[in-house]
Parts: sequence; structure tokens; C-alpha cells
Amino acid sequence: MAAMRVAEIIRRKRFGEELSREEIEAVVMGYVRGDVPDYQVSAWLMAVCCRGMSKREVIDLTSVMVASGSILDLRGASLPVVDKHSSGGVGDKTTLVVAPLVRACGAAVAKMSGRGLGFTGGTLDKLESIPGFRVDLSKEQFVTQVEREGIAVAGQTPELVPADRRLYALRDVTGTVESIPLIASSIMSKKLAVGAQGLVLDVKVGRGAFMKDLDEARELAGLMIEIGEASGRRVTALLTPMDEPLGRAVGNALEVAEALETLRGDGPRDLADLSLLLAGEMLYLAGRAASTFEGREMAQRAMASGQGLEWMERLIALQGGDPRVVESPGLLGRAPVVAPLPAPRSGSVTALDAWWVAQAVLTLGAGRATKEDRIDPLVGVRLLAKQGDAVEKGEPLAEVHARDDARTKRAMAELLHAFEIGEEPGPVAPPLMERLGA
Amino acid sequence: MAAMRVAEIIRRKRFGEELSREEIEAVVMGYVRGDVPDYQVSAWLMAVCCRGMSKREVIDLTSVMVASGSILDLRGASLPVVDKHSSGGVGDKTTLVVAPLVRACGAAVAKMSGRGLGFTGGTLDKLESIPGFRVDLSKEQFVTQVEREGIAVAGQTPELVPADRRLYALRDVTGTVESIPLIASSIMSKKLAVGAQGLVLDVKVGRGAFMKDLDEARELAGLMIEIGEASGRRVTALLTPMDEPLGRAVGNALEVAEALETLRGDGPRDLADLSLLLAGEMLYLAGRAASTFEGREMAQRAMASGQGLEWMERLIALQGGDPRVVESPGLLGRAPVVAPLPAPRSGSVTALDAWWVAQAVLTLGAGRATKEDRIDPLVGVRLLAKQGDAVEKGEPLAEVHARDDARTKRAMAELLHAFEIGEEPGPVAPPLMERLGA
Repeated sequence: MAAMRVAEIIRRKRFGEELSREEIEAVVMGYVRGDVPDYQVSAWLMAVCCRGMSKREVIDLTSVMVASGSILDLRGASLPVVDKHSSGGVGDKTTLVVAPLVRACGAAVAKMSGRGLGFTGGTLDKLESIPGFRVDLSKEQFVTQVEREGIAVAGQTPELVPADRRLYALRDVTGTVESIPLIASSIMSKKLAVGAQGLVLDVKVGRGAFMKDLDEARELAGLMIEIGEASGRRVTALLTPMDEPLGRAVGNALEVAEALETLRGDGPRDLADLSLLLAGEMLYLAGRAASTFEGREMAQRAMASGQGLEWMERLIALQGGDPRVVESPGLLGRAPVVAPLPAPRSGSVTALDAWWVAQAVLTLGAGRATKEDRIDPLVGVRLLAKQGDAVEKGEPLAEVHARDDARTKRAMAELLHAFEIGEEPGPVAPPLMERLGA
Repeated sequence: MAAMRVAEIIRRKRFGEELSREEIEAVVMGYVRGDVPDYQVSAWLMAVCCRGMSKREVIDLTSVMVASGSILDLRGASLPVVDKHSSGGVGDKTTLVVAPLVRACGAAVAKMSGRGLGFTGGTLDKLESIPGFRVDLSKEQFVTQVEREGIAVAGQTPELVPADRRLYALRDVTGTVESIPLIASSIMSKKLAVGAQGLVLDVKVGRGAFMKDLDEARELAGLMIEIGEASGRRVTALLTPMDEPLGRAVGNALEVAEALETLRGDGPRDLADLSLLLAGEMLYLAGRAASTFEGREMAQRAMASGQGLEWMERLIALQGGDPRVVESPGLLGRAPVVAPLPAPRSGSVTALDAWWVAQAVLTLGAGRATKEDRIDPLVGVRLLAKQGDAVEKGEPLAEVHARDDARTKRAMAELLHAFEIGEEPGPVAPPLMERLGA
């Protein structure tokens, strides 16, 4: 009988009807409990992909997912707690810069991050390139660290949103990943379960992002804001460009080193700009700044004073990492082969395609094609020229950090696809395309 | 790796792309072999439901399904072999009339039928109401009977089209039954595996049919004809009305009795007309008649001469049934309760809704709501008034054949919904709405 009832729910969605909260719950919680088989859930997910969901349905789906597991109670924190989420890009190490800056300015950061998958890097993989750093905090350890220290960056604990883990695994193998309602509910369920009062969403748009165009990104961001507001959270979203990689480093240890440089004030301009914007938003949402502009100024002062870097050192120490990497990034290690990629001709970099850079970095072993792949923390790419830069033939466009010569060669061929060298320097993207929310 | 390849095939269909034969085969045969899990197949089926398939894809899907099992070799038959298919209606017992008539006119009939499900009756269930009648012939028995006797009506053997059985079971519980490409490939794969050279499709249209409107029915019929022709078969389709039930009897033994009456020349006009039309088409496709008109005349003569009835008697005997039922239909048995449904007012029957009649008959126990339900062969309804008939208040509209009084009462209430009694007699539907094909 349950199977036939679920079949009818699937059928209703298939014909584009709006489902009630009870119907959504019957599918999702039935699946989590093991009463509804995966073949019914995958058909339902495909019907959602093809027919969409109303805002009300997405809000209900998200809250059903949140209710499938534990919810963190962060009310014991003395500081206001904020969180951020990035929709995933190439070279995006902003969390490593933003979290210590925000903490230095008097707001607590409770951030549960993900692993990299496909062409995007994951914050957890980056942090694990720091010797000793532990991302697998228990739920209790995470809450205690946020309460006592006001900063924690860790992996999601299994008690949180089990529905999302099960649904995501199924979506991954059934061609149902690309769906704005499913993406929005997946992201927001995890954020609502953590329970920060303010949340900044960094939605990436461009060749190196999941969202290829601005309209789609705007739709996703708007939907996530509505989901958050329906739960009484303060949420804003920044739509930011991801055509070329963020910063110059792509690869786990290389990105940690670049984050440390940035906290020191010596980082690449685009990375520093975006990190300060995000930190400013978070300080505004935390009530520490009267405006995002004021928040940004506060974050900039924390960068200049070295307080941000001190909080990074403290975060590393708190989670078992070797804090000396802050002073001596060489302790992160170095790949056996470091080779320059010479410019094939003189001119200006008119485009630098993040997608091809990501492919090269995957070839080097810095990412995962499937969940089972192991990551090489030391390999990656440092981009010495970016969009708008003039280059001379033979001068290095990039530095490839590799395990061996064979992979160096393959990665270089892919990396060459990323660079477009023309006569006139093209326009450089501004850090922010649009801001949505309160 | 296979899983990721299939995920990409699902994704391509989801975005409306046309799949190659190899891709369709990877999904369907992977499923039959057990390499592709049901949750991927159900997502793919839903994507097909939402995005459709090109004609080429449907033809390929059908031929992949046919190739999943055995194909009957009927080349040993001395007579030309033809087959018919009805898309399922209420009171449709035409096979029981048509098969003996066609055989009597010198063409062989090789018919594999289905069970009733939902609101439609199944030929196998009807035949099983004849004491001793066996529908479970083996593949070899079926072929031998067609070769030697030129007539067999049995259930599908498990060696034929295993892909269809597996896909249909999954469609049934995942809201993916209603899809013209999936319906057409399911029906035609079973017909092509039997291997008759000519095939007549009777596609029902109306309240008591799966196809509610003519456009949809025309699309389904056209697609099935193209699938058949792509395999070198001669296929025609008749679109016939199914607003009121066909004939006057609905219920298994009652329908057998009515089929026998019809073969004797005493059957209801609509049933006799449609049976003769279908038989005429089959004789034309078999090459026994120069036109469908001539085929119809031949069938009419076989009815008038009693040769059709003789072949029915022979069919019953061949398959283990008691052939005396032909002379003494009372041997079929009678339900314990037979009660008249009085007309609530005087007037003309302006509509008689097949769907409500089917509900009443289901209530009486003559059909299946789920595959596990057992059928009561004796219960059902005899309609004493049909569309266009004048009725007097208190005179019987129908006769309810039931197991007990409680179910009689419930069925009568549903049956009353079926009858619309007005002032002026409405138009009576012609037996044929449209003919398609060679």
C-alpha cells in the first residue's frame, strides 16, 4: 500500500502538480527509514528535475530534510554565530581567509564544509594538507569549540541531515544532480541544521562554476534566501564571477599557502577583495557592523593588524594542526616536480578558463573524479599570469607542481588550453556581479 | 564505471537528447542482466516519460526488448498467421469471437493475451472461466498448436520479452505507466516476439479506455504501426469507441457466454459489428481476402454458417476446456445472487459510463486492483439498457451477478452512476472512429 501511495505521489509530480508537505515527507522520510525503495525515490527525483518545484515545496523539502537528523544548538555561544557557503569554484580558498578575519572582528564562525568533487576543490581537503589538521570533529566537539573559541571549520557530522546524504548519493548516479530546487534544498538543509543566525552565500557564475549563467545563479540564490528566511535566518547572497580561477593557486597545500599570504596582506587582489566582501557581509549579519561596507573596513583592519593571521594560527592549533605552518609555509611540503609552463607567444592573457585549469589539476591528482579517489595534497598549479596580464613568449605562464614528469606533461597540455593569448588585454571581471538579500 | 556511464545516458535523456541504440541497449539489457540497478532504470523511465522519444528511439527500444528473449518461429504453419491486440476496454471479448471466425476462414490465429489489470478485463481471465481451460501453454505447445491446428489463445510464456516484464513491473510502482513511447514499445515487443505476419490493433478511445482522446490514440496507433513496419510486418489499427462498455456483459463467465451468443449470430449489435470488422482486417492482412470489406463478408458467412462456433468449440477442447459449454452455457455456472437494478426514472439512456460499470464489476470481485487479487469468474453485470434505449421507471437497467447481498448493494450504487437518463435519446457511437495503416 505504501508503495502504491508513493507511486501516486511520483505520478502527481510527473504531471507537474504541487505536492503537499506530507507527500514530500512520505517520500523523503520513507526513504531514510527504508520503507520507500530507491527506485521510487530516483523516479521522483527525476520528476522533480523535469517538472520543478514551487517555492513552498522547496521550503517544505528543506525542512523535512533538516528534521531527518540532529540540529546543532549553538545558543550557548557568547558571540553571534555566522556561516558562509560557496557554491564551489576553482581556486576558491576564501573560507580559510574569511573565517579567521570574522572571528578576529568579534563574530563566531561555525562552518561545516565539504570535500571537493568533480572540478571543484573542497575546504576540508585543503585543511587536511596542513600536517595534523583534523576535520572530523564530533558534533559535541564542534559545538564546544564554537561556544568556547568562536571558530570551527570541520566536516559535517553523520547525525546532521542524513536525508541529504542519501538523496545526494542517489542523485549522483541517476542524472539528477542539476536541479535548482534539489541543489537549494541540499545546501540549505545542511546550513539550517548547523544553526548559525546569519549566512552568506557566495554563488559562483561562469565557466568554472556549476552555474554557467547569471539568471540561473540568481534563481538559485533567491530560492536559498527564501528558504533561509522561512526559517528565521538572515541570509544574503553574492553572485561572483568564476571564469578564471580565484587567486593564483589551485591545489590543496598551494591554496593554504596562498590563504596565509592573503591573511598577511600579500595575497592576490581578486582573492583579497572577495574575502573582505564576504567577511563584511558576515560581520553585518552578525550585527557587528552597521553596514556591509563597515564590515568590510573592519575585516581589512584585522588583516592589516595581523589579528586574522593569529586567529588562523589558533584555528590550526585547536584542530590538531601544526601552527608553525603560519610562519613557515614550507612545512606544508613541496611536490617532487615543479616545472614552468612557458608562454607559446607574446601578447595579453585575454581569457583563462577555470574549467581547463581544474582539469589539469585533476590530472595532477589534487582532486577526485569519484568519491573513492585519494587526493595528493602537494600537487597543483600556480598561475603566474591571469586575465589582463601581458606575457612574453617563453616566459612562464604557470608553475606546475607534480608527482612525476608524465603527469606534468599531461597537465601542461591541458593547462595550455586554459590560456587564450591575444593582442589587447581583455576586461578583468569585478569581484561582485550582484548582491541579493537583506 | 558502468554506473557512471548509465548516469550520463540518463542525464542526456533528461535534457531531451536522442539516445543511440547502443545507449538504450546499455540501460535495458544492463537491467535484464542485473548490471544496471533498478534505481537508475526508474530515473531513466521517468526521463523518457517527461522528455519523450523519437520514432527511431522507440523502434530501437522495441527491438532491444524483443531481442531480450526468445522469438517464436511460426514459419512451420501451413496457413498465414495473424494476430490482434486490443488496448483494453470494458466488456471487450472480441478475441473470443474473432479468433474462431478468422480460423474458420482459413487464416491461423496466434494470440498471446494478458490478464486484466485495473478497470480492464483480460482475455486470459475470461477463458479461465471455462471449466478446465488452460492458458499456460509452453512455448513449444503454443507453436505446435498454431502449426497443426491454426489457432491458439494463451498467456505469454516467460521466455518471451523478459525486458518488458521487468520494465513493466518497475513502471507500475514509479508513476511511469502513462507514456506513449513506453506503451507502444511494450505492446509491440510482445507482438513482434510472437511473430505473426499480420497484426490488427484495436485502440480504444473514451472514458472506459486508457486513451481518453482521439489525438492521443492516433499517436499511439501510428507509432505502433511504424514499429511493426520497421520489422517487416503488416499492421493496421482501428480506433474504436469505449465510452459505454462493448456488448452487454461485463464479468468473465458472462462475457464468455456473450461471445458464444455472438458466434451464434445472436450477440449484441456493437460487439458483432466490431468483431466482424476486426476479423475482416485480419483476413485481409493474411491475404485471404482482397479487401477488408471482403474479409468482413467472409467472417459474416462463417458466423451465419456456424463454422465460427465450431472453431470455438475446437479451441476449447484443444486447450483442455469443456467443449460442452458451447451448447450448454449453463455449465459456466451462475453467481449466487442475481438482482435487477431498477431504473430510477423513465426516459432515454443518454450516457452509459464504462468507467463506472468497471468500478461496479471490480466491487463484485471480477477484476484485480493489484496483481495478487483473485478473480471471481461468475460475478459481473449484464446491461439490459444501453445508450439510446428507452427505459420505464422501475424496469431493470441491468442485472447484477454477485457473491452476496452486501456487494450487490455496493455495486448497484456504483452502477447507478454509470447511467444517465434524459429526455431525448443521445447519438449511438459508430463502431469505428478511424482506420490507420496499409
